[in-house]
Amino acid sequence: MTHIDQTKLIHPVILSGGAGTRLWPLSRPEHPKQFFPLVSERTMIQDTVLRTAPSAGNFAAPVIVTSARHEAMLLDQLTAIEVAPAALLLEPEGRNTAPAIAIAARWIVEQHGDGVMLVMPSDHMIAKPDILLKAAAAAHGLAADGYMVTFGIIPTAPETGFGYIAEGGALDAEGHIRSVNCFIEKPPLADAIAYLENGGFYWNSGIFLFSARALLDALSIHCPTVTEASIAAMDQAVAQGVSIKPDHAAFAAAPNISIDHAVMEKADRVAVVPVDMGWSDVGSWQAIWAMRAGEEAGNSIHGDGFVHDARGNLVYVEGGPPVAAIGVDNCVIVSTAQGVLVLPRDRCQDVRAAADHFRKRAS
Amino acid sequence: MTHIDQTKLIHPVILSGGAGTRLWPLSRPEHPKQFFPLVSERTMIQDTVLRTAPSAGNFAAPVIVTSARHEAMLLDQLTAIEVAPAALLLEPEGRNTAPAIAIAARWIVEQHGDGVMLVMPSDHMIAKPDILLKAAAAAHGLAADGYMVTFGIIPTAPETGFGYIAEGGALDAEGHIRSVNCFIEKPPLADAIAYLENGGFYWNSGIFLFSARALLDALSIHCPTVTEASIAAMDQAVAQGVSIKPDHAAFAAAPNISIDHAVMEKADRVAVVPVDMGWSDVGSWQAIWAMRAGEEAGNSIHGDGFVHDARGNLVYVEGGPPVAAIGVDNCVIVSTAQGVLVLPRDRCQDVRAAADHFRKRAS
Repeated sequence: MTHIDQTKLIHPVILSGGAGTRLWPLSRPEHPKQFFPLVSERTMIQDTVLRTAPSAGNFAAPVIVTSARHEAMLLDQLTAIEVAPAALLLEPEGRNTAPAIAIAARWIVEQHGDGVMLVMPSDHMIAKPDILLKAAAAAHGLAADGYMVTFGIIPTAPETGFGYIAEGGALDAEGHIRSVNCFIEKPPLADAIAYLENGGFYWNSGIFLFSARALLDALSIHCPTVTEASIAAMDQAVAQGVSIKPDHAAFAAAPNISIDHAVMEKADRVAVVPVDMGWSDVGSWQAIWAMRAGEEAGNSIHGDGFVHDARGNLVYVEGGPPVAAIGVDNCVIVSTAQGVLVLPRDRCQDVRAAADHFRKRAS
Repeated sequence: MTHIDQTKLIHPVILSGGAGTRLWPLSRPEHPKQFFPLVSERTMIQDTVLRTAPSAGNFAAPVIVTSARHEAMLLDQLTAIEVAPAALLLEPEGRNTAPAIAIAARWIVEQHGDGVMLVMPSDHMIAKPDILLKAAAAAHGLAADGYMVTFGIIPTAPETGFGYIAEGGALDAEGHIRSVNCFIEKPPLADAIAYLENGGFYWNSGIFLFSARALLDALSIHCPTVTEASIAAMDQAVAQGVSIKPDHAAFAAAPNISIDHAVMEKADRVAVVPVDMGWSDVGSWQAIWAMRAGEEAGNSIHGDGFVHDARGNLVYVEGGPPVAAIGVDNCVIVSTAQGVLVLPRDRCQDVRAAADHFRKRAS
């Protein structure tokens, strides 16, 4: 057991929300991608929780914000990795990241008076988590001092699907921590290319470090309806064991708004710590293949798959019939109980066509 | 209702046996390919039964020889097309075609004294059935006279996977019906090419016309153990409705031998009627695609399949999850509860690799 330095304690706050269509037929509202083992033999939320286990540094037990309908699945997955959460905050309905983070902040204030919280999405992959932990520890003082700290991913490509953070001046002696000039929405390609070439622009990872009180204070200034709804919902919450159900009507009164729009883009004291930590939002089957297959560019097989005279494929079987792929190269083949997907890896953005087709037909 | 000419009556005898691995993951011992809708919206055995319905010519109700374990499935499929069979002969175990045909011949002799029987596999496709029916009618006299009549498919390619029949001299004025010089086992490619170029060689379709008595007489001469076992099995059979169960021990005493080896290759009076009837043994996914897609070479979709920016594919969903195929061309994609198959159409012969893999693993 690592010695915990209480003065530098960090409360992991893990957000388990969202369910995109980019990983059809796997990810779906009742079973979003963070609850699947996509890049390791553990699920993504298990990997996220273990990344900030007490043994990894000065971490308290995690606070997890999730949809009420995922409670049982989440508890099962936590039990499987022998993690006891500090609290599960069960959203009665989705309201984006600002209300989710606000109820977590409120819980920390209620339980501990205050505390520095590290907010992390549960559906991202971080190949080198030590770099994040070191960066969070380095930024602890700034966060305790009232800064909103973001972690910026050093771009490796002119991505147009991510938001960017433009850095300002140095906030520490070494220049590792910078102030933030501005947040930039998903840019056009020409801009993304310029950001990549010029440097000083980072992908917004959705990972944040701040004190719970500072966050609630800033929210009260820039988006008070979120704070009011969140405090009301938590004041009337029903607790059962570690599970806490915020009041439905009170929580639903919060606007659907991201933490970026609600506070980050407006607050004064915002910092960015650039991190090169092998990050991916695991937003496509191509990304999953790339992370699983690694340098070898071979076949990556999850579950009951068989390949014969085939190269560079991702065969992903999870709850569907076993797959045999013969004589095909560089394809994604997914088998779940909901559907079977077959497409070339470089066409992964077209998965939406299938998701749309089957969703429309079902409705 | 067509008028039936009793003097030219034909008893359809339909053989429902075998279950290959060439249509993995669909065809399997408990549900062989003839019980699936492969080339039309009816199952292959339904198409076979309807081909010789009383309305199609001088046909009696069919005698169907099948495995005892397929009885319920077969009855369901016959009910669905409103066909009442004359008899279902339920083999207690598989013994190849000679014993299967012998028990059918014995049943016809017992019920009708004698009769001309048209023996047909249940898992072949015939695009132009009228040509077969006309050829059978034309050969009726010869069969009633004691000839063993075979129907030879005019080759369209130098196939090495079929047996061939070499024709002899003409047996009718027009030369449409020929005597048989010899039966040839699956030939080497050079021979198959020569057969195709020279003409007078036909694929052995496994379709036969002969009188029940003549067949039993010929069998008694050339392979008496088949006749003895079959007669004994039928004499001790248990009947329930149209279903007749030959005695297990007696039937199992029959050798495992094809009708070709048991009698056709040895009998003296054997004829062949060449037919160009759009025949296929439906022996591969490629063959199924070719029959379904036709001239257009487009996508052929059976069941719940979705294709997007994709050409020349067979998407076949039967009991498995729905399939989305995006940006792939000329592939076979099959989804069943047992497995998912993905391979290029020109690699269909490699399906065995998958069937072998999953069979070995299961055992």
